[in-house]
Amino acid sequence: MTSDDLGCGVRFNPLPKDKTFYELFGKSASHLVDGARLLTGMLDAGSDRAAAAERLKEVEHQCDEVTHEIIRRLNSTFITPFDREDIYRLTGGLDDVMDDMEAAADYITLYRIEELPPEVSDQVEVLRQAADLTAAAMPRLRDMRDLDEYWIEVNRLENHGDKIYRRCLAHLFSGAYDALTVMRLRDVVEQLEAAIDSFETVANIVEQIAVKES
Amino acid sequence: MTSDDLGCGVRFNPLPKDKTFYELFGKSASHLVDGARLLTGMLDAGSDRAAAAERLKEVEHQCDEVTHEIIRRLNSTFITPFDREDIYRLTGGLDDVMDDMEAAADYITLYRIEELPPEVSDQVEVLRQAADLTAAAMPRLRDMRDLDEYWIEVNRLENHGDKIYRRCLAHLFSGAYDALTVMRLRDVVEQLEAAIDSFETVANIVEQIAVKES
Amino acid sequence: MTSDDLGCGVRFNPLPKDKTFYELFGKSASHLVDGARLLTGMLDAGSDRAAAAERLKEVEHQCDEVTHEIIRRLNSTFITPFDREDIYRLTGGLDDVMDDMEAAADYITLYRIEELPPEVSDQVEVLRQAADLTAAAMPRLRDMRDLDEYWIEVNRLENHGDKIYRRCLAHLFSGAYDALTVMRLRDVVEQLEAAIDSFETVANIVEQIAVKES
Repeated sequence: MTSDDLGCGVRFNPLPKDKTFYELFGKSASHLVDGARLLTGMLDAGSDRAAAAERLKEVEHQCDEVTHEIIRRLNSTFITPFDREDIYRLTGGLDDVMDDMEAAADYITLYRIEELPPEVSDQVEVLRQAADLTAAAMPRLRDMRDLDEYWIEVNRLENHGDKIYRRCLAHLFSGAYDALTVMRLRDVVEQLEAAIDSFETVANIVEQIAVKES
Repeated sequence: MTSDDLGCGVRFNPLPKDKTFYELFGKSASHLVDGARLLTGMLDAGSDRAAAAERLKEVEHQCDEVTHEIIRRLNSTFITPFDREDIYRLTGGLDDVMDDMEAAADYITLYRIEELPPEVSDQVEVLRQAADLTAAAMPRLRDMRDLDEYWIEVNRLENHGDKIYRRCLAHLFSGAYDALTVMRLRDVVEQLEAAIDSFETVANIVEQIAVKES
Repeated sequence: MTSDDLGCGVRFNPLPKDKTFYELFGKSASHLVDGARLLTGMLDAGSDRAAAAERLKEVEHQCDEVTHEIIRRLNSTFITPFDREDIYRLTGGLDDVMDDMEAAADYITLYRIEELPPEVSDQVEVLRQAADLTAAAMPRLRDMRDLDEYWIEVNRLENHGDKIYRRCLAHLFSGAYDALTVMRLRDVVEQLEAAIDSFETVANIVEQIAVKES
């Protein structure tokens, strides 16, 4: 039930509750920005990849806590800023991006990968931009304004990321790498592509919320 | 809310709206028929695979547009022929089949695969039959009649497809191919198997809708 | 709609219906216990793996039938013990665990795998414990009591299983195996990890149901 449906917002004073949900979405998205920054740092020559992956794991735990707090509130709150199901999907969508980014960093350290294919830095740059766009969009859920440019831009980024991913796969299978190396590198590249797709999923959920609520 | 729940269909004249949803499901399914035909053509010796994959990409875009139109209507329509959530799932299910078929064709061209294992033609034949059955079933959603044979037959096809897929995997790992070739071919074979599974998912969604509405 | 919402439980006498759902969840979970036992048996030296995989396939079919019975009742029942959507998710979650376990056994026989990496027995032991915990928790859904320890313990098991899985991946790529063997073994190990994750998904669904209903 949305506060609008209720039609007696003053009595139940839903605004503080609403506000909390928006703040938690913003908090979750800000963790994605931190995660993308840490991934970018891991690509610098001579960076301590194990340490960066550890920090990414910590950020992922913090993001988990925000997710659980939203779910707890969702299950114990009578009034929500928009459809419960949409809040649930948006929360899960943001959490999925974090898990994908953390998994990618994890493979790099788990497989002790020294050299990554050049396309990986392009993928991580796409993630960095998508994270910034998403973090900037979350506060705008309050008045549902100026969200179009956000999801249009994220969809554009996802298309760009897809081209990078396919170019990278063709490169991996071009004969430049042995089979075991292809398997290792592919795990990293696929997780980064999954993270980009998850950003698009979040943008699509936001689009549907905006259409419904507007 | 279904028009039945409303109990004042005349006033709101829900029928045209209903009709549109059914027409859009049929349109989406007809794109799956086109996609399966294009995949079949790709297997002919001497066929221009790159061109066929390009046409498949166009069909996939057309299918996306139908999906978006359904979602738009769903989010802006008060009266739907059956549960919103079921319409959402059916639409997504049809779209998933298209994405799986397009991805399979994409791998064939991306990896410049010359020779496909013989089991692939059996998989594509299963897809062709499942697509025809699905396209024939969509108009029958109107009166929810004669749908049993559709989902029973699609489930039978999925079981058959699963046997083909497993026989193909055993063949790929039999030692007849080197590791990099196995990886390439496996991507194609898995995407085709995923497309068959997605057809079954659509059939299961239709079954649940029919049970609820009947 | 839950019987509480209805507020006239006596007239509709919802209790027998409720009871059936709980019994079916318990039945589904008991099949998971059988499945985990069969997987454990497959690891014994000199066990007839093909026969065990066959029995696992039978158990999976029985679990499917329970799933279909729950869905049928769900779609034809007016009163449910808790949210329809949660029953649907819980049922699907239990079914997913079964499918993952069956798929793992299937790969072992399909690839004619002789020797499994040592980490696999640790994964299967985690599955055995998670299955026992889940089967013990299902009857407690009736009064929603003492469920905390269940999902806390399953989450702990999933974390442990994840460490085993990552140690196993590092081992597979350590150079001890050729590429084709890594691909074969990895399919088994990933399916077992997926089964463990599916157990956690079930526990998370139960947690959300308990929070809502309490």
